[in-house]
Amino acid sequence: MNEPAEKTGQLNQVSLLGLGAMGSVLASTLLGAGLSVTVWNRTPGRATALVAQGARAVDPVREAVAASPVVVACLFDHASVQETLGPVAEELRGRTLVNVTTTTPNESRALASWAAEHGIDYLDGAIMAVPAMIGSRDGQIFYSGSRAAYDALLPTFDLWAPSEFHGADAGRAALVDLAMLSGMYQMFAGFFHGAAMAASAGMSASEFAARQAPFLSAMTHELAALAKVVDDGDYTVPGQQSLEFSDLSHLVRASEEEGVDPAPVAAVQTLISREIAAGHGSEGFARIYAGLRAGAATAAATTNEGDPA
Amino acid sequence: MNEPAEKTGQLNQVSLLGLGAMGSVLASTLLGAGLSVTVWNRTPGRATALVAQGARAVDPVREAVAASPVVVACLFDHASVQETLGPVAEELRGRTLVNVTTTTPNESRALASWAAEHGIDYLDGAIMAVPAMIGSRDGQIFYSGSRAAYDALLPTFDLWAPSEFHGADAGRAALVDLAMLSGMYQMFAGFFHGAAMAASAGMSASEFAARQAPFLSAMTHELAALAKVVDDGDYTVPGQQSLEFSDLSHLVRASEEEGVDPAPVAAVQTLISREIAAGHGSEGFARIYAGLRAGAATAAATTNEGDPA
Repeated sequence: MNEPAEKTGQLNQVSLLGLGAMGSVLASTLLGAGLSVTVWNRTPGRATALVAQGARAVDPVREAVAASPVVVACLFDHASVQETLGPVAEELRGRTLVNVTTTTPNESRALASWAAEHGIDYLDGAIMAVPAMIGSRDGQIFYSGSRAAYDALLPTFDLWAPSEFHGADAGRAALVDLAMLSGMYQMFAGFFHGAAMAASAGMSASEFAARQAPFLSAMTHELAALAKVVDDGDYTVPGQQSLEFSDLSHLVRASEEEGVDPAPVAAVQTLISREIAAGHGSEGFARIYAGLRAGAATAAATTNEGDPA
Repeated sequence: MNEPAEKTGQLNQVSLLGLGAMGSVLASTLLGAGLSVTVWNRTPGRATALVAQGARAVDPVREAVAASPVVVACLFDHASVQETLGPVAEELRGRTLVNVTTTTPNESRALASWAAEHGIDYLDGAIMAVPAMIGSRDGQIFYSGSRAAYDALLPTFDLWAPSEFHGADAGRAALVDLAMLSGMYQMFAGFFHGAAMAASAGMSASEFAARQAPFLSAMTHELAALAKVVDDGDYTVPGQQSLEFSDLSHLVRASEEEGVDPAPVAAVQTLISREIAAGHGSEGFARIYAGLRAGAATAAATTNEGDPA
């Protein structure tokens, strides 16, 4: 990828491994833009619609890798990436591997190391979108690893979704992706818990959602202020409700009284109780951040630029 | 409150018990609108600014209760309401008690029963706002209990915040309030967990918030669809990610690998694992609602109207 001018033509050739819901729509989007797409799936029969759209379906995976300078892996998990690509490492040498399979940061780093050992230009991708969002402006894809690969493939990536490059550490795209999804899953769990409580008040989930959605959307405006407390590192700032006052005991007790499992909110209460027990009861809710980070090493300040792997 | 025409003048006389941050701003807002306000606080010295604004500060609480047909209690908790009002039950007879102290639904119901025994017209209020929002259109206050009291006092309540009446069951305002707050606290906890993970990628909490806030705000648009799945009671509808595919194992594992306490997201994973173990692994995320509700009795379909207590 060091001579993009020479290789521009080749970037129109992409092999896509894995034709689940996401892999299929990624391939379909490239075909719609006129790229030459070779596809492979572990089990046959998933390529019919793509072949009708102009894709070339091949088997075994060795043939798919050999067909294009750019290989996109969209497989089930880290183990399936290892099983699928391990035997064809030599065929991948000199090519670019874009792995958008859902992995943990450490799994992505392991794949990047393996790729470096075999002369494979590795870029990790984390997709913040459901398949229906691919090809729209609604989703986002984070990339990290080879900057050269990212720069060269950006026009291709733009076909899928807006993207953001997160640096040479191949694990960072997955890390930021999972960090973003953590908030989403916990917000959804909180919504289900709230809806379960509201049902005891005779309110349907839809009636509750009609109130909860605009309220939570408005409350996202508080995140910047909470983040500032975290970044300033002073959890004693005035104007916040103290942990002692908002220890969630009313919420947990009410949930129990209504027969609704308080587990997800009780987990938050446990974080609060820990901080109160450690003498931080008069500080604000942002204090729980410090407790969550207590076991973590802070990342060295690094630039988002750098040499791949 | 059955003859509002006769009593209109009296509704301009309000006694406010409890001058914490919220009680003080509730009193101040009424004074600003020209109402005659009598205030009382357990410990003296909190009324200075309100007296300068025209309030009459009295002691003991018996005198405050006797001063107005409408008594608003904004105290620390349920126990403090019992301690403060128990000895003056006879003075409260024939008056309206609006209790906006944070309580659980069952605590509100207990106060409503106590009030009914003493001929007190009881209305419970749950404030969905921080003190700074009182007097603006940003917050909201839920009421339940005496419909007559709510109707008569609506012009007064409008001075504080937009309001919503949730029926004759005095516990419902608190129940809906806590249900709404459950989503908020879990969203905030999810944000802090995500920010703690993003810190391992060298991202400040503010940088993370700048990405997380618009993402979560956009995701609130999914709540209506999730609610529809709940209301239809069929968690097998296509188009959702299955619990098996999105079992949060990547998220929990990545959190552990980065040294960030996975507790709040692990609690959500536990709910998912329980549903998978019960044979619902191919169903969507909304399935966890059924698990949360498993121990709860569904409220009888009741109208939001009805006789007080």
